[in-house]
Amino acid sequence: MLLSQNKNYKKMKTFGASKEFLLAEEIEWEVVAEGVKRKIKGYDDKIMLVVVEFEKGAEGSPHEHHHSQVTYVESGEFDFTIGDVTKKVKGGDSVYIPPHVLHGAICRDKGTLIDVFSPIREDFMGD
Amino acid sequence: MLLSQNKNYKKMKTFGASKEFLLAEEIEWEVVAEGVKRKIKGYDDKIMLVVVEFEKGAEGSPHEHHHSQVTYVESGEFDFTIGDVTKKVKGGDSVYIPPHVLHGAICRDKGTLIDVFSPIREDFMGD
Repeated sequence: MLLSQNKNYKKMKTFGASKEFLLAEEIEWEVVAEGVKRKIKGYDDKIMLVVVEFEKGAEGSPHEHHHSQVTYVESGEFDFTIGDVTKKVKGGDSVYIPPHVLHGAICRDKGTLIDVFSPIREDFMGD
Repeated sequence: MLLSQNKNYKKMKTFGASKEFLLAEEIEWEVVAEGVKRKIKGYDDKIMLVVVEFEKGAEGSPHEHHHSQVTYVESGEFDFTIGDVTKKVKGGDSVYIPPHVLHGAICRDKGTLIDVFSPIREDFMGD
Protein backbone atom coordinates (compact mmCIF):
# COMPACT_ATOMS: atom_id res chain seq x y z
CA MET A 1 0.00 0.00 0.00
CA LEU A 2 1.28 3.46 -0.83
CA LEU A 3 1.74 5.63 2.29
CA SER A 4 -0.58 8.20 0.72
CA GLN A 5 -3.29 5.55 0.44
CA ASN A 6 -3.20 4.92 4.18
CA LYS A 7 -6.34 6.60 5.44
CA ASN A 8 -4.73 7.18 8.84
CA TYR A 9 -1.74 9.01 7.37
CA LYS A 10 -3.20 12.47 7.60
CA LYS A 11 -4.31 11.88 11.17
CA MET A 12 -0.79 11.11 12.42
CA LYS A 13 0.38 13.72 14.90
CA THR A 14 3.32 13.80 17.23
CA PHE A 15 3.13 14.84 20.88
CA GLY A 16 6.91 14.79 21.26
CA ALA A 17 8.04 13.38 24.59
CA SER A 18 7.94 14.22 28.29
CA LYS A 19 10.94 15.30 30.32
CA GLU A 20 13.31 12.47 31.21
CA PHE A 21 13.16 12.94 34.99
CA LEU A 22 9.66 13.50 36.44
CA LEU A 23 9.89 14.00 40.17
CA ALA A 24 6.69 13.41 42.15
CA GLU A 25 6.42 16.87 43.64
CA GLU A 26 6.94 18.66 40.30
CA ILE A 27 3.67 17.44 38.78
CA GLU A 28 0.23 18.62 39.89
CA TRP A 29 -2.70 16.26 40.40
CA GLU A 30 -5.54 16.60 37.89
CA VAL A 31 -9.00 15.73 39.23
CA VAL A 32 -10.73 13.56 36.61
CA ALA A 33 -13.83 12.30 38.45
CA GLU A 34 -15.26 12.33 41.97
CA GLY A 35 -12.58 10.79 44.18
CA VAL A 36 -10.22 10.17 41.24
CA LYS A 37 -7.11 12.20 40.37
CA ARG A 38 -4.17 11.55 38.06
CA LYS A 39 -0.65 12.59 37.11
CA ILE A 40 0.86 11.91 33.67
CA LYS A 41 4.31 10.57 34.53
CA GLY A 42 6.15 10.05 31.23
CA TYR A 43 5.33 9.61 27.57
CA ASP A 44 6.24 9.71 23.93
CA ASP A 45 4.04 8.88 20.94
CA LYS A 46 4.32 5.14 21.62
CA ILE A 47 3.87 4.92 25.37
CA MET A 48 2.30 6.75 28.32
CA LEU A 49 2.35 6.12 32.09
CA VAL A 50 -0.32 7.64 34.33
CA VAL A 51 -0.60 7.45 38.14
CA VAL A 52 -4.24 7.41 39.26
CA GLU A 53 -5.32 7.77 42.91
CA PHE A 54 -8.77 6.59 44.00
CA GLU A 55 -10.71 7.31 47.15
CA LYS A 56 -12.71 4.40 48.57
CA GLY A 57 -15.93 4.04 46.54
CA ALA A 58 -14.65 6.05 43.56
CA GLU A 59 -15.15 4.56 40.14
CA GLY A 60 -13.40 4.34 36.81
CA SER A 61 -16.54 4.14 34.67
CA PRO A 62 -16.66 1.41 32.01
CA HIS A 63 -15.06 2.62 28.76
CA GLU A 64 -12.99 1.34 25.85
CA HIS A 65 -10.27 2.72 23.60
CA HIS A 66 -7.99 1.63 20.79
CA HIS A 67 -4.90 1.59 23.01
CA SER A 68 -3.35 -1.49 24.58
CA GLN A 69 -3.33 -1.04 28.36
CA VAL A 70 -1.61 -2.62 31.34
CA THR A 71 -2.58 -1.50 34.85
CA TYR A 72 -0.45 -2.26 37.90
CA VAL A 73 -2.08 -1.98 41.32
CA GLU A 74 0.36 -0.12 43.54
CA SER A 75 -1.95 -0.12 46.57
CA GLY A 76 -5.56 -0.41 47.64
CA GLU A 77 -8.21 -2.85 46.51
CA PHE A 78 -10.39 -2.70 43.41
CA ASP A 79 -13.15 -4.69 41.70
CA PHE A 80 -11.79 -4.64 38.16
CA THR A 81 -13.97 -5.58 35.20
CA ILE A 82 -12.57 -6.53 31.78
CA GLY A 83 -15.22 -7.57 29.25
CA ASP A 84 -17.64 -9.66 31.29
CA VAL A 85 -15.21 -10.82 33.97
CA THR A 86 -14.85 -9.02 37.33
CA LYS A 87 -12.10 -9.87 39.83
CA LYS A 88 -10.80 -8.33 43.02
CA VAL A 89 -7.25 -6.96 42.61
CA LYS A 90 -4.90 -5.51 45.22
CA GLY A 91 -1.34 -4.21 45.60
CA GLY A 92 1.07 -6.18 43.39
CA ASP A 93 -1.61 -7.49 41.02
CA SER A 94 -1.94 -6.27 37.46
CA VAL A 95 -4.31 -6.51 34.50
CA TYR A 96 -3.89 -6.44 30.73
CA ILE A 97 -6.67 -4.82 28.70
CA PRO A 98 -6.70 -5.52 24.93
CA PRO A 99 -7.65 -2.71 22.52
CA HIS A 100 -11.39 -1.95 22.31
CA VAL A 101 -12.36 -4.16 25.28
CA LEU A 102 -14.75 -2.52 27.74
CA HIS A 103 -13.22 -2.13 31.21
CA GLY A 104 -13.79 -0.32 34.47
CA ALA A 105 -12.94 -0.43 38.18
CA ILE A 106 -14.59 0.32 41.50
CA CYS A 107 -12.29 1.19 44.38
CA ARG A 108 -13.08 -0.88 47.49
CA ASP A 109 -10.10 0.35 49.52
CA LYS A 110 -8.34 3.66 48.79
CA GLY A 111 -5.32 3.18 46.56
CA THR A 112 -3.27 3.87 43.46
CA LEU A 113 -3.25 2.38 39.98
CA ILE A 114 -0.39 2.73 37.49
CA ASP A 115 -2.03 2.83 34.04
CA VAL A 116 0.20 2.38 30.99
CA PHE A 117 -0.91 2.72 27.40
CA SER A 118 0.40 2.19 23.90
CA PRO A 119 0.20 4.35 21.91
CA ILE A 120 -0.04 7.63 23.87
CA ARG A 121 -3.53 8.58 25.12
CA GLU A 122 -3.88 11.49 22.72
CA ASP A 123 -7.17 12.35 24.47
CA PHE A 124 -5.22 13.08 27.70
CA MET A 125 -3.04 15.67 25.95
CA GLY A 126 -3.91 19.34 25.56
CA ASP A 127 -3.94 20.93 22.11
CA MET B 1 5.87 1.33 -0.20
CA LEU B 2 4.68 -2.19 -0.84
CA LEU B 3 4.52 -4.28 2.34
CA SER B 4 6.85 -6.82 0.69
CA GLN B 5 9.44 -4.08 0.18
CA ASN B 6 9.57 -3.33 3.90
CA LYS B 7 12.86 -4.87 5.03
CA ASN B 8 11.46 -5.38 8.53
CA TYR B 9 8.50 -7.37 7.26
CA LYS B 10 10.08 -10.79 7.57
CA LYS B 11 11.28 -10.01 11.08
CA MET B 12 7.82 -9.24 12.41
CA LYS B 13 6.69 -11.80 14.98
CA THR B 14 3.78 -11.85 17.34
CA PHE B 15 4.03 -12.83 20.99
CA GLY B 16 0.26 -12.77 21.43
CA ALA B 17 -0.81 -11.34 24.75
CA SER B 18 -0.66 -12.15 28.45
CA LYS B 19 -3.61 -13.21 30.55
CA GLU B 20 -5.97 -10.37 31.47
CA PHE B 21 -5.74 -10.82 35.25
CA LEU B 22 -2.23 -11.36 36.61
CA LEU B 23 -2.37 -11.85 40.37
CA ALA B 24 0.86 -11.22 42.28
CA GLU B 25 1.18 -14.67 43.79
CA GLU B 26 0.60 -16.50 40.48
CA ILE B 27 3.84 -15.29 38.88
CA GLU B 28 7.31 -16.45 39.95
CA TRP B 29 10.24 -14.08 40.39
CA GLU B 30 13.02 -14.44 37.84
CA VAL B 31 16.51 -13.56 39.11
CA VAL B 32 18.17 -11.41 36.45
CA ALA B 33 21.32 -10.13 38.22
CA GLU B 34 22.82 -10.15 41.71
CA GLY B 35 20.18 -8.60 43.97
CA VAL B 36 17.77 -7.98 41.05
CA LYS B 37 14.64 -10.01 40.26
CA ARG B 38 11.67 -9.40 38.00
CA LYS B 39 8.13 -10.44 37.12
CA ILE B 40 6.55 -9.80 33.71
CA LYS B 41 3.10 -8.45 34.61
CA GLY B 42 1.19 -7.94 31.35
CA TYR B 43 1.97 -7.57 27.66
CA ASP B 44 0.98 -7.67 24.05
CA ASP B 45 3.13 -6.88 21.00
CA LYS B 46 2.86 -3.12 21.65
CA ILE B 47 3.37 -2.88 25.41
CA MET B 48 4.99 -4.68 28.35
CA LEU B 49 5.01 -4.01 32.10
CA VAL B 50 7.72 -5.52 34.31
CA VAL B 51 8.07 -5.29 38.11
CA VAL B 52 11.74 -5.25 39.17
CA GLU B 53 12.88 -5.58 42.80
CA PHE B 54 16.36 -4.38 43.82
CA GLU B 55 18.37 -5.09 46.94
CA LYS B 56 20.38 -2.16 48.31
CA GLY B 57 23.56 -1.81 46.22
CA ALA B 58 22.23 -3.85 43.28
CA GLU B 59 22.66 -2.37 39.84
CA GLY B 60 20.84 -2.18 36.54
CA SER B 61 23.96 -2.00 34.35
CA PRO B 62 24.03 0.70 31.65
CA HIS B 63 22.37 -0.55 28.45
CA GLU B 64 20.25 0.71 25.57
CA HIS B 65 17.48 -0.68 23.37
CA HIS B 66 15.15 0.39 20.59
CA HIS B 67 12.10 0.45 22.87
CA SER B 68 10.58 3.54 24.45
CA GLN B 69 10.62 3.11 28.23
CA VAL B 70 8.94 4.72 31.23
CA THR B 71 9.99 3.62 34.72
CA TYR B 72 7.92 4.41 37.81
CA VAL B 73 9.60 4.16 41.20
CA GLU B 74 7.21 2.29 43.47
CA SER B 75 9.56 2.32 46.46
CA GLY B 76 13.20 2.63 47.48
CA GLU B 77 15.83 5.07 46.27
CA PHE B 78 17.96 4.89 43.12
CA ASP B 79 20.68 6.87 41.36
CA PHE B 80 19.26 6.80 37.85
CA THR B 81 21.39 7.71 34.84
CA ILE B 82 19.93 8.63 31.44
CA GLY B 83 22.52 9.64 28.87
CA ASP B 84 25.00 11.75 30.84
CA VAL B 85 22.60 12.92 33.55
CA THR B 86 22.31 11.16 36.93
CA LYS B 87 19.61 12.03 39.47
CA LYS B 88 18.35 10.52 42.70
CA VAL B 89 14.80 9.14 42.36
CA LYS B 90 12.50 7.71 45.03
CA GLY B 91 8.95 6.41 45.49
CA GLY B 92 6.49 8.37 43.31
CA ASP B 93 9.13 9.67 40.87
CA SER B 94 9.40 8.41 37.30
CA VAL B 95 11.72 8.62 34.31
CA TYR B 96 11.23 8.53 30.54
CA ILE B 97 13.96 6.89 28.47
CA PRO B 98 13.92 7.56 24.72
CA PRO B 99 14.83 4.74 22.31
CA HIS B 100 18.57 3.97 22.04
CA VAL B 101 19.59 6.21 24.96
CA LEU B 102 22.04 4.58 27.39
CA HIS B 103 20.58 4.22 30.89
CA GLY B 104 21.19 2.45 34.17
CA ALA B 105 20.40 2.58 37.88
CA ILE B 106 22.13 1.86 41.18
CA CYS B 107 19.88 1.02 44.11
CA ARG B 108 20.72 3.10 47.19
CA ASP B 109 17.78 1.90 49.27
CA LYS B 110 15.99 -1.42 48.60
CA GLY B 111 12.96 -0.96 46.41
CA THR B 112 10.84 -1.68 43.37
CA LEU B 113 10.77 -0.21 39.85
CA ILE B 114 7.86 -0.58 37.43
CA ASP B 115 9.44 -0.71 33.95
CA VAL B 116 7.15 -0.28 30.95
CA PHE B 117 8.19 -0.65 27.33
CA SER B 118 6.81 -0.15 23.85
CA PRO B 119 6.98 -2.33 21.89
CA ILE B 120 7.26 -5.58 23.87
CA ARG B 121 10.78 -6.53 25.08
CA GLU B 122 11.08 -9.46 22.68
CA ASP B 123 14.41 -10.31 24.38
CA PHE B 124 12.51 -11.02 27.64
CA MET B 125 10.30 -13.63 25.95
CA GLY B 126 11.16 -17.31 25.61
CA ASP B 127 11.11 -18.95 22.18
